[in-house]
Amino acid sequence: MKKIISAVTAALMLMAGNALASGGHWGYTGEGAPEHWGALDPAYALCAAGANQSPIDLTGLIESELEPISFNYTGLVTEVVHNGHAIQAEYTAGSTMTVNGNVFTLKQFHFHTPSENLINGKHFPMEAHFVHTDTHGNLAVIAVMYTIGKENAELKKIWQQMPTEAGKKAGMASQVRADRMMPENKEYYRFNGSLTTPPCTEGVLWLVMKNPVSVSEAQVKQLAEALKHPNNRPIQPLNARPVLQ
Amino acid sequence: MKKIISAVTAALMLMAGNALASGGHWGYTGEGAPEHWGALDPAYALCAAGANQSPIDLTGLIESELEPISFNYTGLVTEVVHNGHAIQAEYTAGSTMTVNGNVFTLKQFHFHTPSENLINGKHFPMEAHFVHTDTHGNLAVIAVMYTIGKENAELKKIWQQMPTEAGKKAGMASQVRADRMMPENKEYYRFNGSLTTPPCTEGVLWLVMKNPVSVSEAQVKQLAEALKHPNNRPIQPLNARPVLQ
Repeated sequence: MKKIISAVTAALMLMAGNALASGGHWGYTGEGAPEHWGALDPAYALCAAGANQSPIDLTGLIESELEPISFNYTGLVTEVVHNGHAIQAEYTAGSTMTVNGNVFTLKQFHFHTPSENLINGKHFPMEAHFVHTDTHGNLAVIAVMYTIGKENAELKKIWQQMPTEAGKKAGMASQVRADRMMPENKEYYRFNGSLTTPPCTEGVLWLVMKNPVSVSEAQVKQLAEALKHPNNRPIQPLNARPVLQ
Repeated sequence: MKKIISAVTAALMLMAGNALASGGHWGYTGEGAPEHWGALDPAYALCAAGANQSPIDLTGLIESELEPISFNYTGLVTEVVHNGHAIQAEYTAGSTMTVNGNVFTLKQFHFHTPSENLINGKHFPMEAHFVHTDTHGNLAVIAVMYTIGKENAELKKIWQQMPTEAGKKAGMASQVRADRMMPENKEYYRFNGSLTTPPCTEGVLWLVMKNPVSVSEAQVKQLAEALKHPNNRPIQPLNARPVLQ
């Protein structure tokens, strides 16, 4: 994946010359909004031109024999960052999950409100993305949907430290474990997509948990207020991709 | 798909200026060889940068409930073209196949030797690609593998008209039907890939027939001699793509 990113970047920079290569300020509103991402920077070309982009509406599901994901999440959240685009929890090294014989290490997880992906046309109020890489730089994202219900205890610990201004971060005062943020039943949907933010890198293995977890309405509101705007990229065309269940 | 192609082209032309946009001479040998495709023309950028390219080695197959393809191939081959890259049979309008509720029209089929895709690491001496589009411009390719055995009667009729020089074409003297070039058992593998030739457009639905059909050694040799070089693009990384069976 790293090889792919640098190949794209190098090729596009070469074409564009340095004038265009200064990097665009992307976001969710105004001139940096998702519909302009592809034009903001040559390195973001796939955001507009890619045929395998995320998020998607998971429809036309194909019954498949998907192997269970094997989790070995041993670590803890180190700090919580408001990066202007999302609230992101950084994670200690060494927590892994294995799928189809490939081992991926959890790097961070972050939150979108409302959900980015849809399942059979249904939006959720919130979605978490657990971002992993393997030793070759390949990316895998586990997505967890939230439904409104009782307060989420693990999330509460993160929200207590959540910075409400872009560019701020806070250390974690209590122990937050990513394994406690997963649904008990870990059946999943699988598809092939991209990062949902620039540079919209493709070749990302998406594993979307079938079962949502609970969050209170107040907790969703707290995230929305810290972000100051929805941070869900619009749904992208599925094109020729199968979605497996 | 048309929208995607023009978006890529437009974006890349814009970046590159007209100087680089004159179009590269691609092929299978020398300076136009597959490893250089991505650099020959800005419109070919995906050949190098894409994460969802074809051909692939079909491995890690996932058992899935794939719907049967419904064939309505009513037409005939009109002419046979030696385009310098492959031997291609143009097809009359109106022959369709339907998969997952989407109707695709057969445009042409053409031949590669040796095979481009591999199945569980296995090369075949020859592979045919039946290229279809839907009304939105989406592409679907049905691939048929060949194994050495008795002479292929339908192929023989095409080979009798086959031009042996690039840029030449010939009308068909006898009736050639695409439905007679398919294996009897139409079970298939499915994956999401690209064109195997520049501009390496992605978002192509690949349906690879599980069962090969027969071709004589002399028939493969006749194709190889007309082409003067192998016309198989090297295998591309599978990355996050599932291959369904």
